[in-house]
Amino acid sequence: MVRSPAQPEGRTRTDKARRTLSIFGATGSIGVSTADVVLQHRDSFDIEVVTAQSRAEELAETAIRLGAKHAVIGDPDRLEVLRARLAGTGIGVAAGPAAIVEAASRPVDLAVAAIVGAAGLEPTLAAIDAGADIALANKECMVCAGGLFNRRAAAASVRVLPVDSEHDAIFQSLEANNLHAVERITITASGGPFRTATLDEMRRATPAEALKHPRWAMGPKISIDSATMMNKGLELIEAHHLFDIGSARLDVLVHPQSIVHGFVTYSDGSVVAQLGVADMRIPISHCLNWPRRVETATPRLDLATVGTLSFEKPDLQRFPALRVARTALENGDWATNILNAANEVAVQAFLDGAIGYLEIAATVEAVLDVATGTVGGTELDTLEAVLTLDREGRRLAAERIDSRGRRAG
Amino acid sequence: MVRSPAQPEGRTRTDKARRTLSIFGATGSIGVSTADVVLQHRDSFDIEVVTAQSRAEELAETAIRLGAKHAVIGDPDRLEVLRARLAGTGIGVAAGPAAIVEAASRPVDLAVAAIVGAAGLEPTLAAIDAGADIALANKECMVCAGGLFNRRAAAASVRVLPVDSEHDAIFQSLEANNLHAVERITITASGGPFRTATLDEMRRATPAEALKHPRWAMGPKISIDSATMMNKGLELIEAHHLFDIGSARLDVLVHPQSIVHGFVTYSDGSVVAQLGVADMRIPISHCLNWPRRVETATPRLDLATVGTLSFEKPDLQRFPALRVARTALENGDWATNILNAANEVAVQAFLDGAIGYLEIAATVEAVLDVATGTVGGTELDTLEAVLTLDREGRRLAAERIDSRGRRAG
Repeated sequence: MVRSPAQPEGRTRTDKARRTLSIFGATGSIGVSTADVVLQHRDSFDIEVVTAQSRAEELAETAIRLGAKHAVIGDPDRLEVLRARLAGTGIGVAAGPAAIVEAASRPVDLAVAAIVGAAGLEPTLAAIDAGADIALANKECMVCAGGLFNRRAAAASVRVLPVDSEHDAIFQSLEANNLHAVERITITASGGPFRTATLDEMRRATPAEALKHPRWAMGPKISIDSATMMNKGLELIEAHHLFDIGSARLDVLVHPQSIVHGFVTYSDGSVVAQLGVADMRIPISHCLNWPRRVETATPRLDLATVGTLSFEKPDLQRFPALRVARTALENGDWATNILNAANEVAVQAFLDGAIGYLEIAATVEAVLDVATGTVGGTELDTLEAVLTLDREGRRLAAERIDSRGRRAG
Repeated sequence: MVRSPAQPEGRTRTDKARRTLSIFGATGSIGVSTADVVLQHRDSFDIEVVTAQSRAEELAETAIRLGAKHAVIGDPDRLEVLRARLAGTGIGVAAGPAAIVEAASRPVDLAVAAIVGAAGLEPTLAAIDAGADIALANKECMVCAGGLFNRRAAAASVRVLPVDSEHDAIFQSLEANNLHAVERITITASGGPFRTATLDEMRRATPAEALKHPRWAMGPKISIDSATMMNKGLELIEAHHLFDIGSARLDVLVHPQSIVHGFVTYSDGSVVAQLGVADMRIPISHCLNWPRRVETATPRLDLATVGTLSFEKPDLQRFPALRVARTALENGDWATNILNAANEVAVQAFLDGAIGYLEIAATVEAVLDVATGTVGGTELDTLEAVLTLDREGRRLAAERIDSRGRRAG
């Protein structure tokens, strides 16, 4: 028996037709697409809060376009710009991390959690505690603190609807009646820019080469994660927590065209899949309007024009990050927390030219080896414990990169 | 708004966990697969009736294996064999078309309608009138008499669950909540043995060549229909009636690997598809156990091993049957009735060597042209009207084939 994002049934706020909505991370890629989806059905949503980290001008513009009640900027230095832009609009303004958490406590039907990184954890938990269903676009909530996150969501009887295209595809493919009959869940991976590269080519790969994602236009961190396939490893972990399914029944399939986003294999031999063009408005619209689908201004999939869909098993020799992530998933929340922290540091080090491409996964694996003996098994019962372990993972990664740099230097 | 086979909701017999079942056409390909599916979950079904046209020994064996209460043979000359084989078992026996219709009137939760051809019409309507949900594997019910069939099903508040793999795929891809949001329905076609043939090669095609279906092992009639793609035309018509969707929103896509059986395009840009290996036990199990999926002993789909899925638009120049069928669909039930009748005669004439391969579609089109002026617009309100028109279609086709034979001779 797996769990569906549709659960718990009939108890939460996404049962309403007109919804109140807050958008955390409104100026990032997911936030901008969310605004697009909302504007197409303006009468279906009342926007309570929009937040951003530092882009005050864009946040102000978004707040005005969406008719938000409050706009909150993470960087206090940008408050005055925000205030000036919103003068006379009646839109409330505030600044700082505490103000974002406070804004997340305002009751809404649905909170879009699109803040990138560990900074998204506290506001998302605050939104859960306030009883909001969550449209989750922040991987860290599940990767750094999956158990804690799920316990809090269960305690508040809120739904967690996955915005990631792969997980939304699984959400769409899961039948509420047939969760007992799910044999396997498969998410697809484009394979990234190095899908057909040799290990030797990968060894010499530059940040510029690794940043060239074949299908999606994304930020540098997630583009590198896509090149190493660590992104897919993080998504495996996310899928485990979202759908309550063990590693042994979770698959990754390389699918360069990124048309089939994920599928569910049922025990009667049927496979149900969700397909679509690579446009994040599709899963966002699905989550924002679920369980009702509404017209969305995205291109439609035309399979005759696409022509060919291909599938292959991922090569764990060339993409060790996927193997490392799966092992972490099997070892528990402490391990996936360390995995994520070490990976963030290693990716930045690669982008800074401090380590080679193949060293990203090697660093993460080495940090996990060390951490097993020191913080292995740490219980993550509180946000503080989560953030403390995250810092330890970063410290261990920085230490290793630094020591190797010194040896090399 | 389209219609789902799940409708009408909560009123019919497939809501029960343990079901009574009758199988009409129990010794054919669908019937044998149905028996397989039933035997895997023996405790879920009580078998009321099994029928066959002439294979008395196989029918007796099936009746015994399934523990059926009644076995009915269509051909009265085979009654004694059936009686002898079932002596002492307590299984009731009967023979003749009227006995099959009478058996169909026995109340059951679900009737599997797998009798091939027009002979399936009367028993299926009798089962509907008796209040049975229908697992429909007989195309003629929809193609010859779609409107009548649907009116009778609606009057009896029974569900029609489609066993055809393409239509079951659509059934699986339709969300009850979102019938308003269905933009398009697409069924796939393998393209048959002549998918890449030139018109010239098709002109010279022999029955042996046309019978070589690349994916499914089927009888001669459906194999030829698959070669001409008339089968897909009949399925378009079936889809129109099953899902209450107009021709303009119904697509056929050629997909040689026959893995994606069909899909629904929603107005939010999502496509939901059902995939699986080519094994009729999958859709049969889905219909027999719906809405609950149960373990089915079919191979599982392994997309990495399949490797490539390809898609292309059907070529209406080389496959005119598809164009002719669509036109008939747009012209109404009288036209699809004539289409089916003329096609059956033309296929048999091709198999008998009386006409060439390309003459199959040409014959059907010519018959439809003639019929437009004579029986065009005929209302099909009764089974008698349906069967009368069917005979007229056969007569017109035979006449045309005969006259051309004489001209050629």
